[in-house]
Formats: sequence, structure tokens, C-alpha cells
Amino acid sequence: MPDRPMKPVTRLRNWLPVLPTLPILDWGSRYNRETLTNDLLAALIVTVMLIPQGLAYAMLAGLPPEVGLYASVAPLIFYAVFGTSRVLAVGPVAVVSLMTAAAIGQHAAAGSPQYWAFAITLAFMSGLILMLMGLMRLGFLANFLSHPVISGFISASGLLIATSQLKTLMGVKAEGHSFLELVIALVEQAPNTHLLTLTMGVTATAFLFWVRKRLKPLLLRRGLGDKAADVIAKAGPVGAIAATTLLTWGLGWDTQGVKIVGSVPQGLPPLTLPVWDLVLWKDLAVPALLISVVGFVESVSVGQTLAAKRRQRIEPDQELVALGASNLSAALTGGFPVTGGFARSVVNFEAGAQTPAAGVYTAVGITLASLFLTPALYYLPQAVLAATIIVAVLSLIDLKIFRQTWEFSKTDFIALTTTLLATLLKGVETGLVTGVALSLALFLFRASRPHIAAVGLVPGTEYFRNVLRHQVLVSPKLVCLRIDASLFFANSRGVEDRINAEVASHPGLEHVLLQFSAINDVDASALESLEAVASRLKESGIALHFSEIKGPVMDKLKTTQLLRHLHGQVFLTNYQAIQTLTPEIIQ
Amino acid sequence: MPDRPMKPVTRLRNWLPVLPTLPILDWGSRYNRETLTNDLLAALIVTVMLIPQGLAYAMLAGLPPEVGLYASVAPLIFYAVFGTSRVLAVGPVAVVSLMTAAAIGQHAAAGSPQYWAFAITLAFMSGLILMLMGLMRLGFLANFLSHPVISGFISASGLLIATSQLKTLMGVKAEGHSFLELVIALVEQAPNTHLLTLTMGVTATAFLFWVRKRLKPLLLRRGLGDKAADVIAKAGPVGAIAATTLLTWGLGWDTQGVKIVGSVPQGLPPLTLPVWDLVLWKDLAVPALLISVVGFVESVSVGQTLAAKRRQRIEPDQELVALGASNLSAALTGGFPVTGGFARSVVNFEAGAQTPAAGVYTAVGITLASLFLTPALYYLPQAVLAATIIVAVLSLIDLKIFRQTWEFSKTDFIALTTTLLATLLKGVETGLVTGVALSLALFLFRASRPHIAAVGLVPGTEYFRNVLRHQVLVSPKLVCLRIDASLFFANSRGVEDRINAEVASHPGLEHVLLQFSAINDVDASALESLEAVASRLKESGIALHFSEIKGPVMDKLKTTQLLRHLHGQVFLTNYQAIQTLTPEIIQ
Repeated sequence: MPDRPMKPVTRLRNWLPVLPTLPILDWGSRYNRETLTNDLLAALIVTVMLIPQGLAYAMLAGLPPEVGLYASVAPLIFYAVFGTSRVLAVGPVAVVSLMTAAAIGQHAAAGSPQYWAFAITLAFMSGLILMLMGLMRLGFLANFLSHPVISGFISASGLLIATSQLKTLMGVKAEGHSFLELVIALVEQAPNTHLLTLTMGVTATAFLFWVRKRLKPLLLRRGLGDKAADVIAKAGPVGAIAATTLLTWGLGWDTQGVKIVGSVPQGLPPLTLPVWDLVLWKDLAVPALLISVVGFVESVSVGQTLAAKRRQRIEPDQELVALGASNLSAALTGGFPVTGGFARSVVNFEAGAQTPAAGVYTAVGITLASLFLTPALYYLPQAVLAATIIVAVLSLIDLKIFRQTWEFSKTDFIALTTTLLATLLKGVETGLVTGVALSLALFLFRASRPHIAAVGLVPGTEYFRNVLRHQVLVSPKLVCLRIDASLFFANSRGVEDRINAEVASHPGLEHVLLQFSAINDVDASALESLEAVASRLKESGIALHFSEIKGPVMDKLKTTQLLRHLHGQVFLTNYQAIQTLTPEIIQ
Repeated sequence: MPDRPMKPVTRLRNWLPVLPTLPILDWGSRYNRETLTNDLLAALIVTVMLIPQGLAYAMLAGLPPEVGLYASVAPLIFYAVFGTSRVLAVGPVAVVSLMTAAAIGQHAAAGSPQYWAFAITLAFMSGLILMLMGLMRLGFLANFLSHPVISGFISASGLLIATSQLKTLMGVKAEGHSFLELVIALVEQAPNTHLLTLTMGVTATAFLFWVRKRLKPLLLRRGLGDKAADVIAKAGPVGAIAATTLLTWGLGWDTQGVKIVGSVPQGLPPLTLPVWDLVLWKDLAVPALLISVVGFVESVSVGQTLAAKRRQRIEPDQELVALGASNLSAALTGGFPVTGGFARSVVNFEAGAQTPAAGVYTAVGITLASLFLTPALYYLPQAVLAATIIVAVLSLIDLKIFRQTWEFSKTDFIALTTTLLATLLKGVETGLVTGVALSLALFLFRASRPHIAAVGLVPGTEYFRNVLRHQVLVSPKLVCLRIDASLFFANSRGVEDRINAEVASHPGLEHVLLQFSAINDVDASALESLEAVASRLKESGIALHFSEIKGPVMDKLKTTQLLRHLHGQVFLTNYQAIQTLTPEIIQ
């Protein structure tokens, strides 16, 4: 008969701010040639994937393309030092880039030096917020972003991003603050569509979709090894970029009106500082907070999923510190807000990355690219970058979640659709805030209504069950209520109401028995309610009894007057209470 | 063996807005001579008590004294029609008057016609808010005003009110927006104290304290009947007012600098309308909401306490409608915000009021007073009214609650003291909002940390208990977690974290068993978490099992993929799960 010693499994949290740990000291000390090989291979694949993504997401954020490369160097190194996920690939991601554009677009013209400076400031603020949240152990705040709110927000963002790229695909100029404005602007601009750009863009989009869905199975059928097929499929976007760049250069499409990336400065990421302007900081505070929380949630959910596959775990508060350091480093090296990207991290994981060193090697790869590769990007058509974004973000739009959520919970469905519509119609910030406020309101509403069951004795047993669901033994002299929630200010008046209703509807009542088996805590408001109930029942000659009070709750209640002045008893079990108070129903 | 038929005890709430009911039709149809006699006597006592209170609270609110009488007529009649409490005495109360002064003081000079018009507008807005809250069944919102927040707020308000009356007691002018400013102004004005006023004020205060604490026992010892002693003791303030008014008139104290009430217009309450000014309405929206909620909470708690003493009950949402109608009627008849007063309702109850008709008779009494009695109030010294306020509000200050709350719960103590200090230092509105925000934040914080116990089998039984508290049987192959809360977005990630931690710390783990006995609901976020947990465990070769899932939760989970793709089983009881999965520990 094995008996495990009593040891505290529960993590004892230290409520004070803590110093960040350095996970690098752990995995770094056990680094060897095998992990090196695995990490190098994964880094190569991620680098190839990250170059076009970095360029494209920078442009989505309204920034020069090279900023996407700058944001893919220092943040990866800092994440490797502080991060607890072994495989998270940090860098520019679609949704955060869209949020950056929305935040900065109100304060500066896209493409201007001021715009870039503001994006750097936003990364700095987001880094500070993440770092502080981590040091103060506020990671739990992200829990208040419910799944329907995230789903609605991400789907709407995907739709917004895809739509925003259509103008580049069509070769026209169109601006709009909301989805509707954007669609109207696109429709108005449709007659000005540049056909060569559109043809190339649509072809590139179709090709990338085909690569994503069909290429790997095809290669496998042709007898290629799984690994080789995978690498070739992953390199698809790079192939599209190389081909269209060569075509544009060879056929002089840029002189025929196809917009190209143009000259991208060669060199290491610059050293930069945020703009120290209090008014600007105040304006950017809410966007920076939202970007931080969204980035954190995206990062932690992919990190947790991948860690669990290898029976590892990540530490959310330390992740906040790591993402904070990444964003601060992004701000100091000319970058913009970054976080752990979903697709890229999965690729890193599947390519066999063993440690965060893979991130460092990726950073080296991106550095080499920004030193030597940028001249080759001159003739890269912007429409092809738009195509890579469209293909990437359409996977964010999850239509099946709507039907599933509708079937599962109408409340959640309301939160989901409200967030989606608010994001589409009013923009990312309003959408997200609306969703969070709505889900908190719905939560508080439900929390204020405790589940209370009147229970009776199951014949022949010592078990008690809900009188509404089971044939049970009850007495007209006694009502036994099982309260299925800890008692606190928002629900304690509901308990009072229920007891008042029971008393008013049972004229012959002599005993009220409260079964405390599901109550883990009682706060001062609930104590006040219980005392009010006790004294009211006493006034009307009804005894109030308690049963199955848990140890910690009992310790707390012992400091009060409630039990001392009780016109009734405290029973260890409900059955004992019934044996004492209404033995006649047991026979 | 009595077996009650299964009938729905739970009140089935109708979520749509509802038409207000008319409780008057119920009690009115059974009205007879006995209830009439009881109600008339109670009305007489309450009228005598309400006249000085009405005058005093109007002056506390910065309004002419007659406004206090106007606010004590129509609201009582409308409450009688719509209210569900049989004995609640509606009218001006101290805390709401203080809040009115704080709200209007920022927009108009006290005593000006504009100030009065704004107070009328505030009553109108508060009436609208209460009425809407009632029709939309939002009474539960008041539950979010936790007991420590109310205690801290009421104690601080009592202290603020008493301090604000000291200037009248001293016969000086002193203004201050916060407690500290007020105290400083009083100290600065101390040399200007009018000695005659101070002597009379202090004497009146001492006399009223003596009446309150000592007079009734003394009269009883002298052989008076309980009822007679009670009436005489209740008339104490009226005696003090009559005596000092006569003295001031006879000795011409008003010519020696004692401030008197002066001419109070004779006549019926005027017909008035609120100021239709959108900017003003926007400014007054938050104060009106706070006044509504505070008034509602005060009213409902006294109403509930008194109703329970006679085995009656009140309907909170209908109370909102009734208080809304009262405040709207106050606004239309020259009054200011009103609510059910604690002391006055207790007096009404103890004097034997049987129905809300007592309120109507009180309204008639106040009307007669405002028609014929006001000339007699000319020489009433303001310092005596201040004395009645001080004596009334000092009972609001509850010092023992601080020690009790400290012993009971540190979290609640923080909420209590923060609300108290914020109210004293930053005023009533900031204080209340700070308290509510803090208690909600603390609540959300706790709600995001579900109580999860690893449980094991109690030897020789089929019961499971916490491994940390009991010597129980466990297997290294299996971890059984009992989750003591419904699963929803804010706590579901905590469950994920805990399961990840258990898996990471038990290398030989083969089974995770989740005991769902305390789970009443699972939302979409929690479902997502469970699916993530299930698929992560599957990836690492660990089976996930469930036990003791409640009926409604099971119905909901059946619509999802979770159970269909489960790498594990669903057991009816935990014991069955252990019998199947680790029979070796049972032997």
C-alpha cells in the first residue's frame, strides 16, 4: 500500500515582486554537439521563413521593410536569455503589427521618420509594461481575455489584415479606419486597379495557397523524404519571392507601374531610443497595454502547447519578463513591437529546435540577411509580400468556432460575435476593450448568482441530492440548502434572497440547514449576510444550522460572533444533522 | 415517509424588462380599522421625527430647510404605491444629502436658486436610473458594493458630516472639499467662534445624546409604560428644538449673532421640473448613479431586515422601481434625492406600522407642517439642527468593524480602510468608486485562482480527501485533482498550469483524473483549456479521465469534441475510476 508523504504540490507563490530568473543558465550548461546540430537546422528553416515575414509585417505596420529585419535580431537573443519556452520563435507577428499600425496611425503619417520613432516608443512602452507585469506576477491578468474574445478578435484582425493587403494586390491607394471604410475605399478604387500587379499578386497568392496545402503531399507521393519535402514546402514563399523578383528585374515590370520594395538599407540594426514625450506616452498607454496583453496571450498559448508536447512547461510570469526584455531590446535596435509567433514557433519545434539557442542562430541568420541580402530585395514586388501576408492571416480566420460556440454556450457566442463585430467596425482597440468589458460584465453577472440546490436524503443512503432532480426524503419542518460556490460580496445577497424565499414559502418551517461542503471561503460581506440571516431566522423562531464546514472556513468563522450566538447547531455531516433534527424521515 | 413533489423552488426569472407591479393592490384590498389605527400611530411618531430631520438634512445638502419638508411628501406616497416593504420610511437621509452636496457643490453656490434646480435635476436623474435599473432587473448590481466598502464609506461619511456641522455649531464659516481641508479651515476659524452659539450647540448635542442613551431607561425606572417612555424619548429632538426656539425668541439671541433658520415659506410643495441641460446631465451622471446605488443599498438592507422580522420579504427589483418613482416625484415637487432611512424605518416598524399607508399618513403630517408650522421655525437656531445631525450620524461611525474585519480577513480589511481613507481624503464620489474598483479587482484576482486539491483515497472507505491534509492512498501512476470551482475563462488557465505542473513533477505519470463534483458550469474558454490539456496529455502518452460530472455539465460537454476524442474514460464516481485505473492501491 504505497503512501506518498505529504508534500506541498501547490506552488507556494511569493507575492512580492521577484527577480527574473535566467533559464539560459539551466539549458546552457547542458549544451552539446547534438543540440547544436538540431538547433542550427531549425534556425536555418526559421530564418528562411522569417525574412519575408519580417519585411511583410513591417510594411503591414506601416514601417519600412528593413525594420522587420531589425525587429528579428535583438529580441530573439533576449528571449533566448530570459524565456522559459525552448522553441518559441519571437519576432514581428501579423496581429501585433496591425495593432501597431492602428496605434501609431493616429499620431503620424505611415512611412515618416516620426512614425518609425513612435513605433520604437510603442515597443519600449510595451516592453516596460510586460517587464513590470512579470516582476509583479501579473500574468494572471491575461486570463481575463476569454477564449471567445480572443477568437473574435483574431478572426476580425485576420479579415482586417487581409482586406488591408488587397490595395497592394490591386496596386491602388486606399485608406480606411474600419473594415467598412476600407471595403468602400477598395470598391471606389477598383477602376484604377493595375492589372499587371493584380495578376502577379493573385498568381502569387494562389501559388502560396497551393504550396501550403498541396506541395508537401505531392512531394511525398513523388518519393521525397518527409524532411526534404517539408523543407521544400517551407521554402515556397522564398521561391515565390525569388521568382517574382527576378521576373520584375528581367522584364522591367517596375517601369510598368508594379510597385517594388526598392532600396533597403544594408547594415546592422541601428541603436535607437524611444521618444521621451509624456503626452505621446499617455496617448500610447492603452494601445501599448493591449499590444502587450495580446502578444503575451498569443505567445503563452503557443509556448504552452509546444512545451507540453515534450513534457516541459513554461512559467507565464517569467515569459512576461522575457517578452518585456525582447520588446525593450527591439526598441533599442530600431525595431517595433514583437511577440512569439504561432506559425514560426511550430516550424521551429517541428524542425527540431532543442533550446532557445536556435533563436540566437536565427538572429545571426537575419543579421547576415540585413548585411548582405537587402540589395537583392530591391526588385521584390510589394504585391508578392501582400500575398504572403494574405495567405498567412487567412488561417487566423476560424469560421467553425462560430457554430461550435453557438452550440456550446449562447453567452460565449454573444461575447465572440460582439468582439468580432466591434473589431471590424470600430477597430482593434475598441474591439478588444469591448470584448473584455463584455465578458467581465457577463462573468460578474453570473458570479452574483450562486448555484443553490435544495437537497433531500436519497432513501436508504447517507447521500443528499437536489430535490428538483431526484426522488428524495424531505421534511416540511426543514429546508437543507447546498450552496455550490464560495461566499463573497457579489453572491451573498443571493443566498439571503434564497433563504428569505424558502422561509416565506414554507409556513411550517423550523430549521434551515446550510450545507457548506462546496464553500472554500467566506468573506466579510458574506459573514454579514450570514449573521443577518441568522438573526432574522432567530426573530421568526427558525433555527439555522450548518453542516460540512471545511477546516479553513471553520477556522475563520471561529473568530466571529456568528457561531457563538447561533440559534442552531454545527454538524459534521448532513446526515448527522438530519438524524438529529428530523429523525422521523429516516424511519 | 413524506416525499415532497418535485416543484421548482427556484424563482424562474424572466430576463426581459418587466412592468412594475402595484403592491398597494395587495395590501390595500385587506385594509381595515385595526391596520388604520396602527398605521396612524406610527405615522404620528415618524412625522414628529421627520420634521427636524427633513430641515437638517436639507441644510446639510446645502438647500433651504423647507426643501427637506417638500422631499418628505410625494416620495412617501409614491413609495406606498410601488414599494414592497411594509415599513420602509422614505425621505431625506444623511449620507445621500452629503453626496448631493458634494455633487451639486461643484456646479452652483450653496443656497442659490440654481443650486436648488440642480438638486431637483439630480433627484430626477437618480429616479430615472433607479427606475431603469428596476425595469431591467439590475438590482443585482448593488451586490458589487461589498460590505467592507459600504462600512468604510458610511463611517467616513458620518465623520465628514459631523465635521461639516462643527462650523454651524461654532457659528463660523468654513469650507473644504476634503476632510483635511475642512479640519484645517475649522482650526483657522476657531478664534472667531461665537460663544453663545457654541454653548447652545454643545448643550443641545449633549442633551440629545442623553435623550438617545439615557432617557428611556430613566422613564421606565420612574414607572412609565414602555410605549409612553418610547414616545417621549423619540420626541426628545422636538423638545430641544421647541425649547431653544422659544429661548432664542424670548431672549433675542438672534440679535446677539446666533444664526437662526429664518423665514421658511408656508405652503404646499411646489411643482418643479429638472433642468434640461445635456452638459449638466453628463456632469451629474456619475454622482446620480452613485447616489442611486448607495440609496438603494441602504434602503434594501433596512427593508430586508425589517421584513424578515415579520416573515415577509421584499423584492429588490421592485424596490428599485419604487425608489425610482419616489425620486422622480421628489424632483417634480421641489425635493432632492431621497431613500429609505435606517433610523426612521426602525422607528416606524417599532411604532407598529402595518402597511405603507403609514407613509401616506406621514406625508399628510408633513404637508400640514409645511402649511402651518413653518412660521414657528423662524427662531429655530441652526446650531440645534447641526446638533441633531451630529447625534444622528455619529451612530454611523462603526469603530468595532475595523477590529472585527482585521481578524476575519486581511483582504476585506484593505478594502475597508482604503474606502474609508479615500472617502475622507478625496471625497465621497472618489472614495466610493475607489472602494468598488478595489474590491472588484481583488475579487477578479481571487476568481482567477481556482482551488484545486490533489486527492487520494481514505483507506477503508470510498471517500477522497486532500493529500496535503490527510493520510490517503495514492499511486505514482495517477494524479486525481478535485477542482473546487466552476470552470470559466478567468480560472481555466490556472487549471492548465496546475495540470502541467503535476505532469512535469511526476515522471511516471500515466493517468490524470479530474474530479468534476464541484463544477457547475464550463464555458468555452474552459472547454478550450480542457481540449488543450487533453491533446497535450495525449501527446505525452498520459490518459485524461473525468469523474462525477454533473448532469447539466455533461449535457454541455456532449455537444463538443472533447469527450469523443478523449484518450481516457468518464467515470460515474472517483472510486470506480480508482478501481479501474489503479486497483493495486485498494488491495
